[in-house]
Amino acid sequence: LGVTLIPSTINAIPTITPSETKPHGVDDDDFYDRNLALFEEEMDTRPKVSSLLNRLANYTNLTQGAREHEEAESIGEKRKAHKSPQMGTFMGVYLPCLQNIFGVILFLRLTWVVGTAGVLQALCIVFICCCCTLLTAISMSAIATNGVVPAGGSYFMISRSLGPEFGGAVGLCFYLGTTFAGAMYILGAIEILLMYIAPWAAIFVSSSLDGEGAAMLNNMRVYGSIFLLLMALLVFVGVKYVNKLASVFLACVIISILSIYTGALVSAFIITGTFSLCLSQNIWSVYLSKGDVLEKGSLPSPRPVHPPTNRLPYVFADITTSFTLLVGIFFPSVTGIMAGSNRSGDLKDAQRSIPIGTIMAILTTSLVYLSSVVLFGACIEGVVLRDKFGDSVKGNLVVGTLSWPSPWVIVIGSFFSTCGAGLQSLTGAPRLLQAIAKDNIIPFLRVFGHGKANGEPTWALLLTALIAELGILIASLDLVAPILSMFFLMCYLFVNLACALQTLLRTPNWRPRFSYYHWTLSFLGMIICLALMFISSWYYAIVAIVIAGMIYKYIEYHGAEKEWGDGIRGLSLSAARYALLRLEEGPPHTKNWRPQLLVLLKLDEDAYVKSPRLLTFASQLKAGKGLTIVGTVITGNYLHSYGEALAAEQTLKHQMDKEKVKGFCQCIVANKAREGISHMIQSSGLGGMRHNTVVMGWPLAWRQSEDPQSWKTFINTVRVTTAAHLALLVPKNISLFPGNSEPCAEGYIDVWWIVHDGGMLMLLPFLLRQHKVWRKCAMRIFTVAQMEDNSIQMKKDLATFLYHLRIEADVEVVEMHNSDISAYTYERTLMMEQRSQMLRQMRLSKSDREKEAQLVKDRNSMLRLTSIGSDDDEDTDGVHMTWTKEKALQYRATHSGCSTPEGFRDMLSIRPDHSNVRRMHTAVKLNEVIVNKSHDARLVLLNMPGPPRNPAGDENYMEFLEVLTEGLERVLLVRGGGSEVITIYS
Amino acid sequence: LGVTLIPSTINAIPTITPSETKPHGVDDDDFYDRNLALFEEEMDTRPKVSSLLNRLANYTNLTQGAREHEEAESIGEKRKAHKSPQMGTFMGVYLPCLQNIFGVILFLRLTWVVGTAGVLQALCIVFICCCCTLLTAISMSAIATNGVVPAGGSYFMISRSLGPEFGGAVGLCFYLGTTFAGAMYILGAIEILLMYIAPWAAIFVSSSLDGEGAAMLNNMRVYGSIFLLLMALLVFVGVKYVNKLASVFLACVIISILSIYTGALVSAFIITGTFSLCLSQNIWSVYLSKGDVLEKGSLPSPRPVHPPTNRLPYVFADITTSFTLLVGIFFPSVTGIMAGSNRSGDLKDAQRSIPIGTIMAILTTSLVYLSSVVLFGACIEGVVLRDKFGDSVKGNLVVGTLSWPSPWVIVIGSFFSTCGAGLQSLTGAPRLLQAIAKDNIIPFLRVFGHGKANGEPTWALLLTALIAELGILIASLDLVAPILSMFFLMCYLFVNLACALQTLLRTPNWRPRFSYYHWTLSFLGMIICLALMFISSWYYAIVAIVIAGMIYKYIEYHGAEKEWGDGIRGLSLSAARYALLRLEEGPPHTKNWRPQLLVLLKLDEDAYVKSPRLLTFASQLKAGKGLTIVGTVITGNYLHSYGEALAAEQTLKHQMDKEKVKGFCQCIVANKAREGISHMIQSSGLGGMRHNTVVMGWPLAWRQSEDPQSWKTFINTVRVTTAAHLALLVPKNISLFPGNSEPCAEGYIDVWWIVHDGGMLMLLPFLLRQHKVWRKCAMRIFTVAQMEDNSIQMKKDLATFLYHLRIEADVEVVEMHNSDISAYTYERTLMMEQRSQMLRQMRLSKSDREKEAQLVKDRNSMLRLTSIGSDDDEDTDGVHMTWTKEKALQYRATHSGCSTPEGFRDMLSIRPDHSNVRRMHTAVKLNEVIVNKSHDARLVLLNMPGPPRNPAGDENYMEFLEVLTEGLERVLLVRGGGSEVITIYS
Repeated sequence: LGVTLIPSTINAIPTITPSETKPHGVDDDDFYDRNLALFEEEMDTRPKVSSLLNRLANYTNLTQGAREHEEAESIGEKRKAHKSPQMGTFMGVYLPCLQNIFGVILFLRLTWVVGTAGVLQALCIVFICCCCTLLTAISMSAIATNGVVPAGGSYFMISRSLGPEFGGAVGLCFYLGTTFAGAMYILGAIEILLMYIAPWAAIFVSSSLDGEGAAMLNNMRVYGSIFLLLMALLVFVGVKYVNKLASVFLACVIISILSIYTGALVSAFIITGTFSLCLSQNIWSVYLSKGDVLEKGSLPSPRPVHPPTNRLPYVFADITTSFTLLVGIFFPSVTGIMAGSNRSGDLKDAQRSIPIGTIMAILTTSLVYLSSVVLFGACIEGVVLRDKFGDSVKGNLVVGTLSWPSPWVIVIGSFFSTCGAGLQSLTGAPRLLQAIAKDNIIPFLRVFGHGKANGEPTWALLLTALIAELGILIASLDLVAPILSMFFLMCYLFVNLACALQTLLRTPNWRPRFSYYHWTLSFLGMIICLALMFISSWYYAIVAIVIAGMIYKYIEYHGAEKEWGDGIRGLSLSAARYALLRLEEGPPHTKNWRPQLLVLLKLDEDAYVKSPRLLTFASQLKAGKGLTIVGTVITGNYLHSYGEALAAEQTLKHQMDKEKVKGFCQCIVANKAREGISHMIQSSGLGGMRHNTVVMGWPLAWRQSEDPQSWKTFINTVRVTTAAHLALLVPKNISLFPGNSEPCAEGYIDVWWIVHDGGMLMLLPFLLRQHKVWRKCAMRIFTVAQMEDNSIQMKKDLATFLYHLRIEADVEVVEMHNSDISAYTYERTLMMEQRSQMLRQMRLSKSDREKEAQLVKDRNSMLRLTSIGSDDDEDTDGVHMTWTKEKALQYRATHSGCSTPEGFRDMLSIRPDHSNVRRMHTAVKLNEVIVNKSHDARLVLLNMPGPPRNPAGDENYMEFLEVLTEGLERVLLVRGGGSEVITIYS
Repeated sequence: LGVTLIPSTINAIPTITPSETKPHGVDDDDFYDRNLALFEEEMDTRPKVSSLLNRLANYTNLTQGAREHEEAESIGEKRKAHKSPQMGTFMGVYLPCLQNIFGVILFLRLTWVVGTAGVLQALCIVFICCCCTLLTAISMSAIATNGVVPAGGSYFMISRSLGPEFGGAVGLCFYLGTTFAGAMYILGAIEILLMYIAPWAAIFVSSSLDGEGAAMLNNMRVYGSIFLLLMALLVFVGVKYVNKLASVFLACVIISILSIYTGALVSAFIITGTFSLCLSQNIWSVYLSKGDVLEKGSLPSPRPVHPPTNRLPYVFADITTSFTLLVGIFFPSVTGIMAGSNRSGDLKDAQRSIPIGTIMAILTTSLVYLSSVVLFGACIEGVVLRDKFGDSVKGNLVVGTLSWPSPWVIVIGSFFSTCGAGLQSLTGAPRLLQAIAKDNIIPFLRVFGHGKANGEPTWALLLTALIAELGILIASLDLVAPILSMFFLMCYLFVNLACALQTLLRTPNWRPRFSYYHWTLSFLGMIICLALMFISSWYYAIVAIVIAGMIYKYIEYHGAEKEWGDGIRGLSLSAARYALLRLEEGPPHTKNWRPQLLVLLKLDEDAYVKSPRLLTFASQLKAGKGLTIVGTVITGNYLHSYGEALAAEQTLKHQMDKEKVKGFCQCIVANKAREGISHMIQSSGLGGMRHNTVVMGWPLAWRQSEDPQSWKTFINTVRVTTAAHLALLVPKNISLFPGNSEPCAEGYIDVWWIVHDGGMLMLLPFLLRQHKVWRKCAMRIFTVAQMEDNSIQMKKDLATFLYHLRIEADVEVVEMHNSDISAYTYERTLMMEQRSQMLRQMRLSKSDREKEAQLVKDRNSMLRLTSIGSDDDEDTDGVHMTWTKEKALQYRATHSGCSTPEGFRDMLSIRPDHSNVRRMHTAVKLNEVIVNKSHDARLVLLNMPGPPRNPAGDENYMEFLEVLTEGLERVLLVRGGGSEVITIYS
């Protein structure tokens, strides 16, 4: 950076040579620089919008999370490549939907439904069912317009949009529904065949009335299985023929429907009068019980002899009917609304075609159904309508009586369309299963992902055929229909639920463009689905919900992790937030106090955890319940240590898994470990999930280490813990503590209850003993009686107290009489003081000399001195404070020789501080009795004395703690948090 | 601290004078000091164990949370004081329980139950009911032995142990149960009176059979109401007489039972043969429908003409019976197990007496019931047993046929005992209600806490009488019994549930001493309660559960906060932990990304929030969903600032409430604000509840302030945010942002999308527009095209992109052509550089002079210098780094006069840095187009450039940002977190 004088007039702007001015690796594009120079340093991570937009054309701009989509996309594109040109709404969505929605029920059961339920209730049934699918279609449209539609069809759309759990559950429900639909279509085809086309083909014929139904069912089973086998073979060898026949089947349906309309019009205009008469007759419901005789209300038949020996001339109701049953039987004729979405890959503009096509198809079919109900009710007599198998019309299809020009139009039309629908179900279901299996979200389905060389799903077809065979063995259309209704309703329920949830949770990515979508519609759809499920059969509904719930949970726990996003993560987020906010109501009551641990761990140079046993101990203390936060502080500059922090977090997590600690981990990069720990203690946890106890290890090598940081950090942490009103646990000799697989077979946990700070000392052994490692240890409580105390009374009081605390423990009161300070104590104090003095001087003189040299070097540079006085470290203060005037004088006198051994001579002459002597006396005496009584204890719990108010005594404090715990194997130093944690009240 | 030489031989220990050695206010007790000197500094907060134990005798040692108990205790003691001596197990628990358990059902319905259900099923009913109460008694015993028992009875025990929610729900269920029990007793008494003692007293008499039942019910209603009124009056005027009569009533019961046993023995031994014959007849159930005729199976009566005109000689079943109905009718005869616990205040050793007495009483009554079932079944003919009102035995009580010496013993005995039980219910229930009302946990009950001058609960009695009147209006014993069963079962269910939960959640305070308690027993009890509820009547059960649930939730939301602890707080803790652990599975998918904010607030000197609008803005951005953490850093030493931190937290919470931000707040006390903020950004949140976006204000007065800390902290925070991969939002002119009550009626939110860093710029306006304040603002997106870009294509691409993002916005591409750097830019850069140079020198020279003075003062003290080089602050580094060799030389040359105005002369000659010029050029040009296009926008969103890699440019960076946003009213500077937050995929 050259410092040259420039002319003070600014008009003449000097040209700046680029070579001179790019210290930070700025790139060379001058145009670019001029307009976006402010952003140039980060262009690698934050690209210019123009360059982003360039890449936009093929939708591959978004790197994260889009890979999966891209793959799906590219597969879809490949498929497109060798497929017919892209389809529009009418051919691509409307017609397939129409074909899938119209089905066997319209021809075989709708007349019977109208006759039994009456026109009004039948309209009601049709209306509710159509509403349900319409609302579901709206939800589907919202999903389809919420971003680029993947090519894989509705399953892909739903699973990618709502996540693997919802997707898998919906997918499997959809699969089972489709499979049972296949069975239903086959049963319908057989029914048409055996009842109306070729009654002579029946294999089983019963002479008695009772046996007739059973014989028919057996016929259905045999023929159904044969049909299923043939169809499965057809699908196996030539799926492409099936697809080509689709339009033929659709034509059959449309011709049949037209034939009905024409017939109805003909009968309405030619045989006038029938119309209104029938309609008024059929307006109300006539539900029958099984075995009831069909009869006109105005013309009651004479009662047959009971039991009737011959069927003729009566027609009996074959099942007991009710509104709810009819709902279940009718519902399959409105399913099939996903047919359009399933072709998403072949559509020109899927986001436009799917909503319009599907909803138009639903409206069309709804209109047809509703008008059919009225037409049937108006044109056919009630008794005939209720005659399910057309016995009273010479064994013809009832709806056939209405058709024009001939009943055979409908019989043949419905037979072929039903066969076609069955074939399509058998084609579609295995493909769906294969797609689910390939997604690998349900591990046990994996095998069904494989297929023939050309990708046809052989195994999936086999499974589908087997499940469909189950449906065929049920043999009755009226029993199979409710089953598949249930699965479809379940599927629709999930779709609606997921849409409503996403709006209510305000998922940011949920921005459907479909303008008629509103969450209330989805919610209403969900309610209707649920209601229909329970209306049609509440036990099936419960079974279906349980199955779907199990699939959901199975995928949640065992499914492969999928990077799809789930759209309803907001739910768990809201749940967690709600639970946390509920907790946040001030500190808990004493009787609810439980240790919520913050375990402070240290990582060594290789980023391993230094004392993993601390975690073991924490897991023993928690016995798996409550909060544990594991924290560590890394020294360094966060701006450069992000990776290191992540790695440390991984290490902690790994260690937590190993020690089976369920909890959270936290890692702070701090310039000074001490600050980091202090801030971690202050800010860990969230809301009510705050730690109330800090666990940290004892700085083992503090005496050996020349660096005072280790024990200074320790003492500072003790001080911070106290200031934050938190409890503190310091296990000493943590490496000797038992692991989770080394239970103590016997022995004692000894508590030395010297001062009362909240009852932690009593609670901890109780909690530890909940864990198998400590379960067999008995608890002993010792307390110290002094001269003036009545130790017998004390023991009694203590026993009563423990009785009220409901804690079982042996009680002992140890008398500690006043004794003179021993020579040993005195000597030890002196040694301690001398040692710390010596160390301090060594450190001092070292840094001293270094600093002096530095000072000399920096002398003239006043700049260097700006740092003096700013950001003074406490260390220095600490050292400084012990260095009082006298000592400084003394120091100065001996200064010249302080680094030689002779320099220490005068230290020997220091007289020990009285308060140190007294403290040392306590430590020595207490240690004596503790070792005497508890030398064989598995664990000794001990009140931890507080650090001295005057930081000058810090080093001595460490020494006192050492003396206090000398000769004990495992010690747990305990400091209460200032609040009671145990109470004699319930 | 005197430094005197001491003799090097340690034997002669010098006596230390206390006056010399107590710098820290240590107290004077020498004995004490010697043994516990280590703990002496904290003796005020952590008392010696011996002094604690001294206070233990009267259980008042535990200060926290025990106050309430103490008050209750002292009330209890007062009561004790003017009451009879403390009672033992037999008189205090066993007999009261016995009296309460035995009741009207035994005499009036048990025979009928045996006859209808058969001996086996009757045994089954009795056994299940007794099991239920026995298990509940075990749970109650666990509660009673879990700490000191309060004097107020079972309600106090339960509510103090399980918390107000459970306590209130249990208490109200118990109250309603007791009240309905009162009604049932009165109905029973009337039944005995009108059926067996004085049939002539009936007021309504019906001649027809159909009307007879209704007439009887009306008689019950009239007499019942009269009885209720009389009893209520009796309770009102003289509750003490009622208590005195208790033993008389108990005697009645016992005499009646003895009379039955004697009678049974007499009939067994005298009329031998009846025994086994009847038993074999009665072993199986004979359930009847309403209106069935009672007849012997072996001797069927001829069918009466239908409808029967005269009642005689037939006896009809008056209700349809079933096993489940009988369970509901029998259950009230096992309730009353709380009677012992209710006297907890009068017991010598409540913890021993309650378990033993209650369980013994239950065992006794169970034995009596079981043996009675067998006796009744063995001694009385089935037809007679099924004859509920004894019509076939001349209108006598059926059980009376068995009694010895006379049926009247039982009739009179049962009448009086039933009246007594009714009286006791009417005495007990109002007191319970009063206790609940006085606790004030259910606000709307407050009025019932008041009473007469002597404390008798007048209003509560009135309410009780009214509710009992409801029961009496139902008039049938068989209809009232299931209602009260339901309430008692609900109460028992809660007790069992709470016990099981406390064990399963490992509540530390849950340490019941009762040795036969195990959570499986409580769990089993709970299951049995639930099963009995649903067995006896599933719709009543649902209603009862809904009522109890509503009470629970009502107390949770509206109840007064009670410092009782709830024993099941663990439940919410576990729930929160589970929810959080579920979340912790790595970063969310792009499509689930939602802003989770960490709002950094500053507090001013008076501890007010400096920019509360930051919170307003956060609340608008969240629209109430997702995570918000509000944090602040206080500068200071945590060891002394705990109170300040708490106060700051309160301020934040208050402000959050005011701005309706739902979230958490956090406060860190740090020596350096910068470190604190860095650590807060690193460690806030827990598990999956981590923030991903930092919101902070712009340091408004950074130019005016001489202290560089404010903007240095700002830039450091930007750097930390970037390092942590978090997004950053910096609203500028935050005070001009609209409040929550000032919706923008129209206008635009303008997005200036210059570089792409994850799509935050697109997502934020979408989220803001969900809030009512911004709903009416339209969104415009501007981007910048440069020379080489095809701006028409860019606009098209951008529109497509937004279409796929499903975000509605106007799109505009602004062309920024390459232009020469203007004189203005150049001048502005120069001014900026000069200004910062000048300020730096001013600061430098000031500290310089100060430091020099300091140095001179400290010269000789080498100690002071130990701080040099340790803990260097970055500030200094920052300043230092810009101070390169040349400048230093130059500086040295002009050093002598640097603090005078003339000293700045040579600064004017600095030539501006080229990269600064280029950046300034960008800022000026961008600002020009932004102001041009967006001057009228309600809000301008703008990419925030990153801080320079070289910290030397920090101050200039601030200047660039100022220039960039100059002339705009409300600006939101946005930096992405390095991950995509918006996707075109669904």
